[in-house]
Amino acid sequence: MQHYRIHMEYDGTDFHGWQIQPGCRTVQGTLATVLARLDGGEPVRIVGAGRTDAGVHALDQVASFTLRRERPEEHLRAALNSGLPDDVHVHAVVPVPPAWSARANALWRRYRYRMLRRPSPIGRRFHHLLVRPVDPFAMQRAAVGLLGRHDFRAFARLPPGASSTCEVLEARVEFDARCIAFEIRANRFLHNMVRRLTGVLVEVGRGRLQPEDVATILTQRDVQRGGPCLPPRGLCLVEVGYPDPVVDETPTAP
Amino acid sequence: MQHYRIHMEYDGTDFHGWQIQPGCRTVQGTLATVLARLDGGEPVRIVGAGRTDAGVHALDQVASFTLRRERPEEHLRAALNSGLPDDVHVHAVVPVPPAWSARANALWRRYRYRMLRRPSPIGRRFHHLLVRPVDPFAMQRAAVGLLGRHDFRAFARLPPGASSTCEVLEARVEFDARCIAFEIRANRFLHNMVRRLTGVLVEVGRGRLQPEDVATILTQRDVQRGGPCLPPRGLCLVEVGYPDPVVDETPTAP
Repeated sequence: MQHYRIHMEYDGTDFHGWQIQPGCRTVQGTLATVLARLDGGEPVRIVGAGRTDAGVHALDQVASFTLRRERPEEHLRAALNSGLPDDVHVHAVVPVPPAWSARANALWRRYRYRMLRRPSPIGRRFHHLLVRPVDPFAMQRAAVGLLGRHDFRAFARLPPGASSTCEVLEARVEFDARCIAFEIRANRFLHNMVRRLTGVLVEVGRGRLQPEDVATILTQRDVQRGGPCLPPRGLCLVEVGYPDPVVDETPTAP
Repeated sequence: MQHYRIHMEYDGTDFHGWQIQPGCRTVQGTLATVLARLDGGEPVRIVGAGRTDAGVHALDQVASFTLRRERPEEHLRAALNSGLPDDVHVHAVVPVPPAWSARANALWRRYRYRMLRRPSPIGRRFHHLLVRPVDPFAMQRAAVGLLGRHDFRAFARLPPGASSTCEVLEARVEFDARCIAFEIRANRFLHNMVRRLTGVLVEVGRGRLQPEDVATILTQRDVQRGGPCLPPRGLCLVEVGYPDPVVDETPTAP
């Protein structure tokens, strides 16, 4: 028995998201089929760091699983990639202790939402097209209001009683003449939260909300004010952060 | 009658190149259909600045044509884009004098060939994947050898007697951990020249040729040594240069 961590990139366009669902082409399901074949036909349980929705991409999704048969990392990586389709690729395989979980051990996730300011045939697969002009400086000012620990109930449809507090460690808007990108790093994310937050930033960019309104929406916790949920194609899971193993394993001084 | 210049971006993946061909989906043919419909059904002759091959992309292809009916630029641009498919987009329309030609007036073209150093589902549509490691510094040194006026016969299959001298104004290799890009600006390009030049640079990167060998290949003019022609997906026509109209129209001092 050996437990592994893998790092994956995928083009989410033709996937029904990360999570396995009967009858749907999902990243987890595609990976599970390849892993089961490699490991003697038995189902393999896979834990992913971020549950990306249908059409959402990942530059560095992290997953963990246990195989009954131990294999050298490079061999396992090559075997996985030769079984996987072109739109998903495993960049790294790392053996980890049995209790290690891609989800539970994650300290933070970083997402990026990219928008085009004008139509672009070359960019269309990985950007949302803004149909009206926006002021990116106003969006930058609004993004700052998201930093810190807040209740993000206004930006997700949650069952009653579900926890909705997230700690936002970074939130910034970058832009050039062609593109605007919103990047956010937080300890956790609620369902559709990044797409709704970006929706509010676009409302600010269009002048329909003021940058200060973002703080008010957070305080009011009213999902009706939490902004439209933008389409998935602009969203990408960029990075997942874990405790540094070198630092963790440093023995404390006696 | 009004003569126009247009600037276009396209994803070349699903086009049989720029040039109109019966029974093939080409950019020129697609544009000609939309223009004819807009201009009363008569065929419209279109001149393109660069004849991109099947699968080659363009960020800023330039074309010129005459319409029998004059239209405001913004109106014509919107009408063109509403008739064009998603993989081609007109960014600008500019009225020009009747004799102006997107091809004959061009001073230079800039192409970029992009390569991935490792598989990437997100990058695969617009990059060629290098299957073996390369030394990008060696490729940088080799690119310098292309600068200036040379006979590029070794890098194209030409009919006998065809002119093969080009003046290379810029040639450089840029890279990071994920990607290598070769960018070249010249007054003219021979058929498949950029893809073959990049092929030689990759041979240099792999250590099968030395950076100095590029100059020798140029001098020998032997097409057998001119390097493999890399696939079209990595190639993009990035920019076309024209005389600055402001400078041109400045009256000379008496």
